[in-house]
Order: sequence, then C-alpha cells, then structure tokens
Amino acid sequence: MREVYAVGVGITSFTRLEYPLSEIAAYPAMMALKDAGLSKVDHVYVANMAAARLNHQSGLASAVVDTLSLTPAGAEVIENGPASGASALKQGYMAIASGLHDVVLVTGAERLREVNNLEATDAVATLSHPLAEYIYGVTLPSLAAMFTRLYMQKYGVTERHLAMVAVKNHDNALLNFYAHLHEKVTLEGILDSPEAMTNNPYVAEPLRFFDCCPVSDGGACVILASAEVAKKLKKPLVRLAGVGQATDSHCVHERAEPTDLLAVRGAAAQAFKMAGVTPSDVNVAELHDAFTILEIAESEEVGFFKKGQGHLALERGETRIGGKLPINTSGGLKAKGHPVGATGVGQAHEIILQLRGEAEKRQVKDAKIGFTCNFGGFGNNVVCLVFKREN
Amino acid sequence: MREVYAVGVGITSFTRLEYPLSEIAAYPAMMALKDAGLSKVDHVYVANMAAARLNHQSGLASAVVDTLSLTPAGAEVIENGPASGASALKQGYMAIASGLHDVVLVTGAERLREVNNLEATDAVATLSHPLAEYIYGVTLPSLAAMFTRLYMQKYGVTERHLAMVAVKNHDNALLNFYAHLHEKVTLEGILDSPEAMTNNPYVAEPLRFFDCCPVSDGGACVILASAEVAKKLKKPLVRLAGVGQATDSHCVHERAEPTDLLAVRGAAAQAFKMAGVTPSDVNVAELHDAFTILEIAESEEVGFFKKGQGHLALERGETRIGGKLPINTSGGLKAKGHPVGATGVGQAHEIILQLRGEAEKRQVKDAKIGFTCNFGGFGNNVVCLVFKREN
Repeated sequence: MREVYAVGVGITSFTRLEYPLSEIAAYPAMMALKDAGLSKVDHVYVANMAAARLNHQSGLASAVVDTLSLTPAGAEVIENGPASGASALKQGYMAIASGLHDVVLVTGAERLREVNNLEATDAVATLSHPLAEYIYGVTLPSLAAMFTRLYMQKYGVTERHLAMVAVKNHDNALLNFYAHLHEKVTLEGILDSPEAMTNNPYVAEPLRFFDCCPVSDGGACVILASAEVAKKLKKPLVRLAGVGQATDSHCVHERAEPTDLLAVRGAAAQAFKMAGVTPSDVNVAELHDAFTILEIAESEEVGFFKKGQGHLALERGETRIGGKLPINTSGGLKAKGHPVGATGVGQAHEIILQLRGEAEKRQVKDAKIGFTCNFGGFGNNVVCLVFKREN
Repeated sequence: MREVYAVGVGITSFTRLEYPLSEIAAYPAMMALKDAGLSKVDHVYVANMAAARLNHQSGLASAVVDTLSLTPAGAEVIENGPASGASALKQGYMAIASGLHDVVLVTGAERLREVNNLEATDAVATLSHPLAEYIYGVTLPSLAAMFTRLYMQKYGVTERHLAMVAVKNHDNALLNFYAHLHEKVTLEGILDSPEAMTNNPYVAEPLRFFDCCPVSDGGACVILASAEVAKKLKKPLVRLAGVGQATDSHCVHERAEPTDLLAVRGAAAQAFKMAGVTPSDVNVAELHDAFTILEIAESEEVGFFKKGQGHLALERGETRIGGKLPINTSGGLKAKGHPVGATGVGQAHEIILQLRGEAEKRQVKDAKIGFTCNFGGFGNNVVCLVFKREN
C-alpha cells in the first residue's frame, strides 16, 4: 500500500451557521487548499449525515465539487452517522493507498440548526434501530444515560467524574477560537453550588445539561495526498499511519455486556496494529465525547487506561493539557461542538495541528503521535485513526 | 494496484416493496453471499440516496451489517444521487485494490414508494442546484425535457426514436424476471394509434409517459474480492477492470454546450483507458436511461457511436439483443426500474450475469467485455465501469 499524508486542513467555527450547507462544506475546503498550497485535487469526499432530511438536498458532493470549481474531480457523500467524518477519511486513505488517486479532499459538514432542536434530536435518534429502539422513543441521550447508569454501578464512576470531563473540555475550548462553547465551567458552578441544579439540570438522569454536546453547525476539511505529492509541499509531514473500523450490534440491548464498547476496542486495535504503535505511544488524542461518559469509556476501550480506570486517570489530571496524555485538547464534542458529519474530520484537524506544532495555546509539547476515535450510532460503527509526525 | 473481481451477485425485484429499507438492502446481499459461497466479508458499502428523508433512517449501513450478521465488518452509506451504486462499487474497488480489505460487499437499496410519487419526485429534484434550479421548480423530468428538445433540434432525434428505446427496453424487461415493468410496448400503441395520446401522454413535452422510468423500490448486490479469494471460488472469473468518474457543472444551464455530457465522456474514457480496451471492444452495456433520450446521448458520449448518431444505430437495431452492441438487456431503468441507490449496482449485476453466461433468455452470445454508465444528478457526477470475463 502507498503511504498517505495529511497535507492541508481547514475548519469553520462550530456554531450556528446561516449559510447553505454546500457553502459550509466548501469554506473549510478552501482554507485547506490554501493551507496545502494546492489548487486542484483528484477526488472529493463529503462527510454528512442528514442533508436529504434536514437541508432538503441530495447529491451534496456534486454541489460541493462545483462550488469549489474542482470539476471534473469525482465526489461522493460518505454517511456513517456521527462517524461519517472518519469514514470519509478512510475512503480518502484507500483512494490514495490503492494508487487510483494522488490528492483527495475530505470535507465534513452538517447543518443541524436549519431545523429546530427537536427535529435535530429526532434526526439523530433515527440512528437507533427503527423497530427495536426508535419506535419506543429512544434517543441518543437516553441510550447514553442508561449506559452511564450501568457504568456507575459497575466501575464506580460518579456524577463528579462526568462533570470533570466537562470542566476540562470547556477549559480546552477556551483556547480554541473555532469551538462552539466559550464558557468557563467549574465543579462549583455545575455540581456543588445551590444553583447547580438550575445551571445544570438533568437531561436524562444521570446525565445533566453539561454532560451533553451542543447542537452545532459546522464544517472541517483534511486534504490527503501520496508521499510523492506531500514531500513536494512545504508543510510538516503528518502521515495517516493507521486506520481501523469495527461494527457492533445495532441494538445496544443485544450486547452481552452493554458497558463494553467492542467496536471501539476493535477499531482502535486495528488502527494501532496498522500504525505499528501501542496506546502508550500516543501523545494526544481526540475522543468522541458526545456525552461525558463516552470520553471516560473510550479512553479505556482504546487502551489508554485499564477498563474501569479511565475516571481515575481523569481525576489525577492525566488527560488535561500538560498531563501524561491530553484528551480532547480542541474542547471535544462537548465544548468544541458536534456538527455530525464534520465531527470526525474536525478531530483529525485538531490532531494534525497538534502534530505540526500549530495548536497555539493548547499545544501539547513534542506531540509526535496522535489518535482519533469517531463513534457512530451508539457505538455500532466506530472508526479510529492514528497520525504520525515524520519530520 | 491489486486486481478486483466480482464474485457474487444478488437482486430483489424492482417494484413496490413493503419491507423495511434495511431488509431491502439485506435480501440481495444474502443472495450474493450464497451465490459467492461466502459467509463473511471484510467491509460493507450501502448505496442509498435518501433514507434520512424518505425512510426516516440514518446510519443505514450499520443496520444492514447487523441484519446480515456481518459485524464487526465496517460499513458506510455511499451517496452520489442516482449514481450512488457505481460510486459504492468504486469504493469497493479501492478498498481491495489498496490491500486494506479482501472481500467487500456492495449493496444498493432505495425505498422511494414509502412516500407518495410527488414526494419521491421532489426528493429526486433536490439533486438540482438549490438556489439556481430547484427553487424555480425544476425537476429531473423537466431538465430531461429541455435537454431532449435541444437534442432534437441539433441532431434530428424524433419522438419516434425515443419511443424505439422504450419498445426495445420493454421487450428486454419481458425476459428479466426481476424487472419492474412486464408490459409489451409497441410503436403502434404508444405513438401511432389514435389511443397513443391517452396511453402515452406528455409528462414534460417532448417526453411522454413511456419516456420516463418508473418509481421503483429495490435492492441489488455485488460482492467484490481480491484475485486470491476469487480464484478459490467456483464462479466464472469476472474482473472489475476499469473504473472512471467525472463531474460537470452542477447547473445544467452553465454548460457551454448543454447537449454535451462531458462527465459521461470523461468517466467512460477513464474506465476504458484503465481497462485497456476501447468502446468497440464492448459486447454488452447498461446505460442510465432514466429518460429514453439518455440512452441515445450516452451511447454517443461513451464512444459507442459518433455524436449525434446514436439514434441511427438504434434505428438499425444495433442496440437490440442480437444486434452488434446490445444496450440495456436488463430492461434498463426504463423498464427494469430505477430504485435510485440500487440502480448502479443493478447495472453491474446485469453485466456480471451476461459475462458469466447466466442471463438466460436475454443472454448476449460470447459476451466477454461489459460496460456500465451510472449517471448522477443531471449528468453532474457520472461513474462508468468496465468488466471483463477472464476464463
């Protein structure tokens, strides 16, 4: 297989964006082309979950390639729910590794806020099983809440640990211009004070408002290229060294041990094996914290910490910037935001900045190996990526 | 690049199907696994355009992989409007050619008839440019009608030629058990008799009812594998030898010459070059006749006939079964049907049967090289494939 490099990145603010969806996808792509110093590409992938429903648009990829004046490059939309972004990066990887293409632009975009929050929540809920989950009123927050309850019982995680994830990730987001929520959060304010129940009410017990990611619009782009192309450009060399993906049962209740996230475990193991590194080699990671519990659970399943001990590492501050393994330096889905189709590309964007040493005030020192975990459905389709700085 | 073979095929009837969309995608996949003699795969692609809108479902790929008990194989939905199917086959090609996967299942499915025809027509119309076409009431039939009018003026195509495509493809569909429309059509009945205007009224002048494909539900599957896997199985060896894709301006009116389909021309040229064959080597082809004019125009743009002469070859009977180059032996979109996401996979299904010698009463003698053209939007994103029988 040919080696594949990340040669350009771009992003929009994750926030409410009153632009057509194709423009939300195109803007970060223009930034990434400029960043890479490229004006044409061989192929375009657009990661998006629900344009047909939320934005009344099909064939989005063709619209984006035309908006960017990149015709006649081919283009497709890649959909894998909240993991659409990393799935699209995987397609880009294969397009180059196979030798079919040399430069592939991967842009992710979602415009959830074209509709109201109820409809956005419903659109996300349609990721659940239509006959065994959705029809009974299941939503992603309610699945996450049930998962959290079991996790608390089994491993001793408390609401305090969940709140610590929020505090850390809001702190990180304050250092990220493009993050959705720029709001200092403290344990006092969201947990310990008399006002906490007002500031931070339960959404789906035991998950509170600050345990859930916001509903964001946004776009993010990564351009991938062959070694030959990458080595001619002036950027630090960041290689997409490992790609892993695994699925798990569509219905959460069918899992032998519902607190195990086997797709996360499988996808991470594949990505590490392919990259020839171990979890302890990782210097910086973006995990899929759509709910605070997921950062803790994923930090265990990918192999950073033993199962049931992620919350202890969090307590010790190991996952803060400056800690042993900073997690979600961007602010994570929790505070950076979660424009579904853009999220996985946005995670890669952050890791590439970190490995280039361009992460400004949130820079992790000497970061050489970075990792992303992009979580589809409620853990039914997960894609993990390993990036390596090579020079 | 590693070589890629088609090792298994399956299909549903293209018709109205009162099953959940995930089952429509899974059924042909089960047939294809049986056909190939395989029980597991490394990866799954689901080609689909509008599940989020029409079927209230996201993350369809995860649902399909679970329905088929193929977990932990990774899976994505590939969307490229009406060319989603061939786009998904292209991803499968790259997944194997890159060496990342050995066996990839590509299933296409659409359930348009879960909604009424007006909503289905609108969902397809959202493929047009949202601000420059859709907003003014453009639909795919109206774009095709304007295209036809120009084609008639420029090249002397008549309504009679259009009707000849319908007659031929309905004849072919009578030989295909899985086709949507099993109805003998004659020039007398749809054009020459006093009843023709009742039998075959104008939909968008000059296109009549029998110039337009039906609104179909359906699924189709092709399993792709590496040479190593393919050569261990017992099936005739059919190789996916050429893959081409090109985009054109999103707005049809921005094209310098609107009767030229540059994306078809570009995609076909790439596919032929990669396969090392020329259009005159092709023994059987499936073209994207969502409207009868498109079969004529594409037969020219891909290089089978000179520009402006496709209708003359049709007149001479060259594109009938038994002619020099049979086109749309399956019945085409016109009579086999057009379940959007399934269509491109269905085209490949037909070509693979033909190259295997398994096309029964519609078999093209000694077919060794087959071609498909899958047309997205109104020609803004086109994927062409070349298949070769190797033993």
